[in-house]
Amino acid sequence: MDIIQMKPIGYVATEQSAVPRFYTISDVQGELIIDESLQDGLRDIEAGSKIVVLFYFHQSPQFSASDLRVVPPSRQDVRGVFSTRSPVRPNPIGLSRLIVMYIRGNRIGVRGLDMIDGTPILDIKPHK
Amino acid sequence: MDIIQMKPIGYVATEQSAVPRFYTISDVQGELIIDESLQDGLRDIEAGSKIVVLFYFHQSPQFSASDLRVVPPSRQDVRGVFSTRSPVRPNPIGLSRLIVMYIRGNRIGVRGLDMIDGTPILDIKPHK
Repeated sequence: MDIIQMKPIGYVATEQSAVPRFYTISDVQGELIIDESLQDGLRDIEAGSKIVVLFYFHQSPQFSASDLRVVPPSRQDVRGVFSTRSPVRPNPIGLSRLIVMYIRGNRIGVRGLDMIDGTPILDIKPHK
Repeated sequence: MDIIQMKPIGYVATEQSAVPRFYTISDVQGELIIDESLQDGLRDIEAGSKIVVLFYFHQSPQFSASDLRVVPPSRQDVRGVFSTRSPVRPNPIGLSRLIVMYIRGNRIGVRGLDMIDGTPILDIKPHK
């Protein structure tokens, strides 16, 4: 199959070192620092709104066939990887729903972070 | 910034040539044909459930700075690209929520398709 190339649009900045495993209970704050050349694309993102952020699990180990079955931290049973949010997946893309606190130039202040400092951001989409 | 490489996990197969622009009103059916080597990762995806599918807008033109502002088909006003679902974005990743009709081996029958035949699939995630 063809190889697809992507380039981060920016990075996550957060001082939190311990990131909750479940985004739904995360109250961690930080900033999405977007490449300045793309800043114009951030218009209309509003404080108080929710955004969908796609990111790259840059610290995940290389996926191998043994990762097709996963035991999620919250469960005891084995699940197929595509029924889990495991960071070890064929294409290690993560999806988070974050609350926008503010926009300042090319920085989006967010809360609900479940990414670590330095995580590469691939895309931002409206939530629904 | 670093280049990230991805490889499709499979492809969309549908006989529909005209795909609705808004996934919420799509009743288009088709199959997600997943690479056989990854079939074991499909376990626990259940008929009747909803899945999130990340895919590659493989027919989108190359993104340029003029695409940072978009006039969505449903609106008259200009929006920042990250507040839209435009297929022309810095990393052309699409996100769809699909209803699973059945699983047969490495094929997932779905409805709600808003991708065209041959669209490369990057990831499948549980819906919430």
